[in-house]
Amino acid sequence: MIILISNDDGIQSEGLHALVRAVSDLGQVWVVAPDREQSAVGHSITISEPIRYVDFELDGAFRTFAVNGSPADCVKLALSELLPEAPALVLSGINRGENTGISVIYSGTVSAATEGAINGIPAAAISVDSFSPTNYDAAAAVSRRTAELVMARGLPEGTLLNVNVPELPAEEIVGIKVVRQGRGRFKETFLKRTDQRGRIYYWMDGHKLPLDETDTDGIALLQGYVAITPIQFDLTHHAYLEELSEWATDFTLPRE
Amino acid sequence: MIILISNDDGIQSEGLHALVRAVSDLGQVWVVAPDREQSAVGHSITISEPIRYVDFELDGAFRTFAVNGSPADCVKLALSELLPEAPALVLSGINRGENTGISVIYSGTVSAATEGAINGIPAAAISVDSFSPTNYDAAAAVSRRTAELVMARGLPEGTLLNVNVPELPAEEIVGIKVVRQGRGRFKETFLKRTDQRGRIYYWMDGHKLPLDETDTDGIALLQGYVAITPIQFDLTHHAYLEELSEWATDFTLPRE
Repeated sequence: MIILISNDDGIQSEGLHALVRAVSDLGQVWVVAPDREQSAVGHSITISEPIRYVDFELDGAFRTFAVNGSPADCVKLALSELLPEAPALVLSGINRGENTGISVIYSGTVSAATEGAINGIPAAAISVDSFSPTNYDAAAAVSRRTAELVMARGLPEGTLLNVNVPELPAEEIVGIKVVRQGRGRFKETFLKRTDQRGRIYYWMDGHKLPLDETDTDGIALLQGYVAITPIQFDLTHHAYLEELSEWATDFTLPRE
Repeated sequence: MIILISNDDGIQSEGLHALVRAVSDLGQVWVVAPDREQSAVGHSITISEPIRYVDFELDGAFRTFAVNGSPADCVKLALSELLPEAPALVLSGINRGENTGISVIYSGTVSAATEGAINGIPAAAISVDSFSPTNYDAAAAVSRRTAELVMARGLPEGTLLNVNVPELPAEEIVGIKVVRQGRGRFKETFLKRTDQRGRIYYWMDGHKLPLDETDTDGIALLQGYVAITPIQFDLTHHAYLEELSEWATDFTLPRE
């Protein structure tokens, strides 16, 4: 059974290496990952340019490809061209930095797992809540257990797991919570500066806004829990469909 | 009242110009759009590099900025730095090519409108179902009516409208339907070729898979209707939360 692994921090990322080692005996591990960091690329795909790969060696992987594309490109290329058969599981991570709340929609890590789900393959994205993790042991163990359970039990069609792990020693993690995606988000600010030639540039920065919510991914993580959220890709605001339908009668068409 | 307009086809796009003209008397129109095509960038944001703008002139716009970033970058920069006050409405489009079904998650057009909704501003994305539209008259009229209705009635918090318009003369459009996002998607294929130096490259291509569904955005559009879908950005698979919670008891933590 093939396990496909990708990420958005790139092929050199320690989190990727830790994930590969954590599951290397659960299947034949194929790694298809970006050749450089692709954080915050969201669900971008490369359609206007060619993409290429180079072979790479990683401890614990059967084969490894470094691709000059996004995480979603990597999984699409793997499924269409590189793998000899469909994988039993797609894993993405271990990401440096949590992916909860609104951040999920900007996450390249989640997008790689989403590509798995779109193609009918059980998938999970794993992130650790630190931009400079000192070790990945707890997140690696959680990843392994996630892989075992998902392979044994499957997931509903079009569903993937978004797993966020606190940056704590394993023995200090409080427990596991299955929670909804919250509304936590960054408030962007832009540094405005002048370059060497006198031209203005902006550079995106930001800070987390306080969380005014309960029972969400962001809150569980803050409280020391591993947060697991089942996600899907139907963005419809179902509860609002009916009310909006009443508007449609006022939507005079151009001809009228 | 300010109307902020962006897109993903770039500042030179005829669809953008048609949208600006269509709403220019409904408010003070500010355009902040990518300086080149950014299709299929999904919800990417630029955090590792600076971004800049140049001033531009567009018929019907009060001010226009061409930004070397993604659609989401454009809206973030506009809201944080460029606009004198929060806009009453964010519009994105008119996109060349429909954004229905799974394509919504790859859409830069939708991501610009989503940035509006994240920031509490009513928003709509408008696309026309052709890669080479012969005219934008019907889509422009639909855009104008959408803008009027959304400004008059508002939208629930965190909600935007995804509007897809058939490429038909206005008088041939069958009507308006409020519908859910479907599962329509492209099946990717990759052209595999050898370059001038003998190295292999891949180039993403694809074709639409047949739609096996009813009452969706993709179906309504095919039937000649304007398809309007209210979308939001909570990706939680709510119906599956409870069942997955039962798993959590089997999720032995690393320490155990």
